[in-house]
Amino acid sequence: MPTSRLEAFSDGVFAIAITILIFDIKAPTNTQHLLPALLALWPSYLGYVLSFLLIGLLWVNHHVMFEHIIKADRLLMFVNTVLLLVVAFVPFATSVLAATFRNGDGENIAVALYGVTLTAAGLLFNAIWSHADRGGLFDDGVTAHGIRRMTKRILFGPAMYAIGAVIGFFLPVVGVVVYALLILFYWLPIPQRDRNGVRIGSR
Amino acid sequence: MPTSRLEAFSDGVFAIAITILIFDIKAPTNTQHLLPALLALWPSYLGYVLSFLLIGLLWVNHHVMFEHIIKADRLLMFVNTVLLLVVAFVPFATSVLAATFRNGDGENIAVALYGVTLTAAGLLFNAIWSHADRGGLFDDGVTAHGIRRMTKRILFGPAMYAIGAVIGFFLPVVGVVVYALLILFYWLPIPQRDRNGVRIGSR
Amino acid sequence: MPTSRLEAFSDGVFAIAITILIFDIKAPTNTQHLLPALLALWPSYLGYVLSFLLIGLLWVNHHVMFEHIIKADRLLMFVNTVLLLVVAFVPFATSVLAATFRNGDGENIAVALYGVTLTAAGLLFNAIWSHADRGGLFDDGVTAHGIRRMTKRILFGPAMYAIGAVIGFFLPVVGVVVYALLILFYWLPIPQRDRNGVRIGSR
Amino acid sequence: MPTSRLEAFSDGVFAIAITILIFDIKAPTNTQHLLPALLALWPSYLGYVLSFLLIGLLWVNHHVMFEHIIKADRLLMFVNTVLLLVVAFVPFATSVLAATFRNGDGENIAVALYGVTLTAAGLLFNAIWSHADRGGLFDDGVTAHGIRRMTKRILFGPAMYAIGAVIGFFLPVVGVVVYALLILFYWLPIPQRDRNGVRIGSR
Repeated sequence: MPTSRLEAFSDGVFAIAITILIFDIKAPTNTQHLLPALLALWPSYLGYVLSFLLIGLLWVNHHVMFEHIIKADRLLMFVNTVLLLVVAFVPFATSVLAATFRNGDGENIAVALYGVTLTAAGLLFNAIWSHADRGGLFDDGVTAHGIRRMTKRILFGPAMYAIGAVIGFFLPVVGVVVYALLILFYWLPIPQRDRNGVRIGSR
Repeated sequence: MPTSRLEAFSDGVFAIAITILIFDIKAPTNTQHLLPALLALWPSYLGYVLSFLLIGLLWVNHHVMFEHIIKADRLLMFVNTVLLLVVAFVPFATSVLAATFRNGDGENIAVALYGVTLTAAGLLFNAIWSHADRGGLFDDGVTAHGIRRMTKRILFGPAMYAIGAVIGFFLPVVGVVVYALLILFYWLPIPQRDRNGVRIGSR
Repeated sequence: MPTSRLEAFSDGVFAIAITILIFDIKAPTNTQHLLPALLALWPSYLGYVLSFLLIGLLWVNHHVMFEHIIKADRLLMFVNTVLLLVVAFVPFATSVLAATFRNGDGENIAVALYGVTLTAAGLLFNAIWSHADRGGLFDDGVTAHGIRRMTKRILFGPAMYAIGAVIGFFLPVVGVVVYALLILFYWLPIPQRDRNGVRIGSR
Repeated sequence: MPTSRLEAFSDGVFAIAITILIFDIKAPTNTQHLLPALLALWPSYLGYVLSFLLIGLLWVNHHVMFEHIIKADRLLMFVNTVLLLVVAFVPFATSVLAATFRNGDGENIAVALYGVTLTAAGLLFNAIWSHADRGGLFDDGVTAHGIRRMTKRILFGPAMYAIGAVIGFFLPVVGVVVYALLILFYWLPIPQRDRNGVRIGSR
């Protein structure tokens, strides 16, 4: 089965999950002291920006990965569905995160939950990639070296998010900073050029 | 009329219906005892996972079916719209299901409603398939044997879901287990290879 | 400008508007007497089915129209955006309609509002079609006879919806029946075959 | 990386952001005096129409811009994601705007917030365009003159929105009128024909 409709469906889920993040920022019902009321929502803005960049990044990763995977079997579709399940879970994890910082209660649990969600997404990318490798679902242009390189790169992500989750459980603010740095790091263009058939960063 | 825009529109509805399942899991407003509050939402997580895999499966079925149906007439578009109506109803049925298990009240009605929804979706797939058969809307590569095989396969689904609905009305937990097993069974790759022009399982 | 991205964007809005109709059906919070609580939501189910078939129909009309319109200018894009604005308004009109029938109050206003929304959608289809005619945005295969025929067909819609709105203001139930009949009538395959380059009904 | 999947993903976010604007218009729960209750929602209708036309316009701009940009690098994808973040923020800014006009409190802050959101969107369009210029991401048919012309045109937007935001802070109603005029001005077909490879207005 070709992957085009799989990509279109996944794009839809990514686009919806990223846009509904805004639902967690609710307009104040009492607008008499609007400026302080809007400023008090800062944890929601922060969660919005963080998760928007995160889901955008997951989408880019998905995109890059499916430039190399050109066939889909049943198991790949299943793992991809589980990945989308985690992506659609991000708005909930974000909502919990923002609520705890607004309330000043439960931040450690919320930061850990957020990190676990990210870790799960990363592991599922790994599962897709290694299944595609074993199942011969790649484009012919992909070399063994290129596959190993991508494998290393995408293993790094969940490991770092898991570390962030552990740190965040004890020092919530530090955990959030770790996630933000990781997201920015992954968004940065990577200077090294890849000569192995797997585009891993810059255009 | 070719089916490409029909597929794109259907993909959109499937993608939205699957993603809005997350709206039924609401972040606790009181985050003082966050861990127990999050754990108390277990019926919502369960419903989320079950229905995510279910809608994902319905999407795959739709995809497989429309690889063989290459023309659409007015009636096909109508039946497809009714199918999408049932797909978009799944988040509501899921929400009712999770609410009853959280409350410990009304599970039998909710499990039956969920099963009836699934049965309706299955019957509508059958209606699309048999209409396409009668109306000559298939791709030339599809053989009579392949069509019969698909017919048998897709009749099996609603029959099983209906049985699950009846069981679930008397033993709600068993009903949910039946649905979960059916969904997993359908997701599993089918070892038999199909030599008749209708791909029914594995890639 | 070609119309492909315009169609994709419009498909997105149609798909979202049709799927969010389900948000108006809320799971009962008290599930002790679930069956009567679910049955009491009948106006919401009715509104859901009616508006789902309606938006599905508007989508089909849009689809058919843009098979013949192959170029888009600025004004066409503007009128199409206003049409989408009305399409996205349907879930609100549906929500008001269902609320009045659940409450037993204000049905006449709600039925009229619903009919005005439908009439506006119909008039905007006319505006798109006649602008495309004047602006030479059609496919070469479309004949003058075919254009006139479509014009007549799409003028009929808003006229009937407007009549439904007036009737509905005095006899709400009759108004709803009129809308339902119109929607079903438009969904039915039309036996006449069109030999003029404009497909107006059946495949 | 080609821009087709980037455009599809962006189209999805635009389509969702524009459609969820309707969520800010809530059906009155008490329908005994339905007509006055519906009329009291006028600020919500106004915000809906204004923001629908606005997001529609941003979508058209995006469309026009990506007819000329044919390659995407990592930075372009990042800036595009930030633009989508601002687009998805519009429903929130609209909700705040409508709430203040309904309450008769805090309009100046809300009008300024709305204008700042628009200004940010405009600046991000500029960032995309100038990055594409520096990075050689254009189609070969685009001339230096055409690029400069587009640059001038898209700089004009954020400047005007910023002026609207400042005026709106002191005279909220005037601010809203300024936004409405700007949106209508941008939607109007521009008579001048462009002979420089960059289509900037009319078809």
